[in-house]
Amino acid sequence: MEPTSRIVPHFRDELDALKERLLVMGGLVEAQVHTAVRSLIERDHALIGRVTDGDASINQLHIDIDSRCFTLLALHQPMATDLRTIVSAVKINTDLERVGDLAVNIVEAADRYLRYAPVKLLVDIPRMAELAQAMLRDALDAFVRCDIVLAQHVLDTDDKVDDLKGQVFRDLLASMGKNHVIIEPALDVILVSRHLERIADHATNIAEDVVFIVSARDVRHHAWESDQGA
Amino acid sequence: MEPTSRIVPHFRDELDALKERLLVMGGLVEAQVHTAVRSLIERDHALIGRVTDGDASINQLHIDIDSRCFTLLALHQPMATDLRTIVSAVKINTDLERVGDLAVNIVEAADRYLRYAPVKLLVDIPRMAELAQAMLRDALDAFVRCDIVLAQHVLDTDDKVDDLKGQVFRDLLASMGKNHVIIEPALDVILVSRHLERIADHATNIAEDVVFIVSARDVRHHAWESDQGA
Repeated sequence: MEPTSRIVPHFRDELDALKERLLVMGGLVEAQVHTAVRSLIERDHALIGRVTDGDASINQLHIDIDSRCFTLLALHQPMATDLRTIVSAVKINTDLERVGDLAVNIVEAADRYLRYAPVKLLVDIPRMAELAQAMLRDALDAFVRCDIVLAQHVLDTDDKVDDLKGQVFRDLLASMGKNHVIIEPALDVILVSRHLERIADHATNIAEDVVFIVSARDVRHHAWESDQGA
Repeated sequence: MEPTSRIVPHFRDELDALKERLLVMGGLVEAQVHTAVRSLIERDHALIGRVTDGDASINQLHIDIDSRCFTLLALHQPMATDLRTIVSAVKINTDLERVGDLAVNIVEAADRYLRYAPVKLLVDIPRMAELAQAMLRDALDAFVRCDIVLAQHVLDTDDKVDDLKGQVFRDLLASMGKNHVIIEPALDVILVSRHLERIADHATNIAEDVVFIVSARDVRHHAWESDQGA
């Protein structure tokens, strides 16, 4: 018996549709992160409400994608790379839903932050946000195209986000030491930088899944064969 | 055709072994969290090293459990509840590995914190840690026993952890305002409280998976049947 997937008509179409839905989900959460950071930088209360309201459609898509994954697993009983791709899709879906939650956490911090005078020019926060958004986009593209080079690029970018987070922390710590009136809003900016770091971590998780799917292909295949023969 | 799993000999034994490995993993990460918080409270540098060194065996177990999940999926092509249980095991394994990372993050903060004089009695931190550890333990027990009542109890406890986190934040913010010499160590304690909150969030993820496995049993089953009939 060959360890190939039992291909049922439309399996490839449904797998493509699943990947397309994940890209839509990725686009939505990326927009949420972008809007959340804009609310903080542009001091725009209306954008806070837009992010809070936008979370419901992400949660709906999360349920839809999860359901597609389980239907594919149950009906088509895929093997090897297909199996790993679909189980990874379940995990990636969870990562994206959490990024959506983090966008909400960012506007919660922004909502408190906007009660105070601006702390200082927050140049590092938009840079962190741009990096984290690019990482998310690249990680999903890498997943859809099984592109291990792009996935590795995402993993390499994570260090830059960590460096910026450290810089935000040291900058604001120094400012807080000099002027403790700004302690509260500065803490909220530090929190936002941690949320952005976690968004980058979720992109890293996705990239790690891609490396695993692609590089484990042969290893898993042979492990399966030897188990089967035993 | 009935949507039952194609039961291959030893499937149940292997599924039980998988659950047992997840409990071992849970015990290890719980011990790491406990030791990490002790290093902070007891100001014990030796415990910091123990947590840092302990992460390798958790990462090893993470790989072992992941491999068991994929072998079960590929060889036995489970359906319905079994399928959902094994895919959830992949997700739970990831959650536990992240809790291990958070224990390392706690000792990183403890390492900085111990360079300063103690900020104040940290009564809320051990309480948060105890709650988070109990949530982890209960969530895994709920998974192994498919106990939806215990899973719901975990979900309810999360609010208590969030309240304590808020209390830690407000307490230290007030102290920082009065005495800004303590800003740096107080920030590390705030970070530790966030790490503990995230550990509780991972327990919450596990509990949500249990609710999903148990409550979705019939729903998924019928969805599968109607798809199959189409």
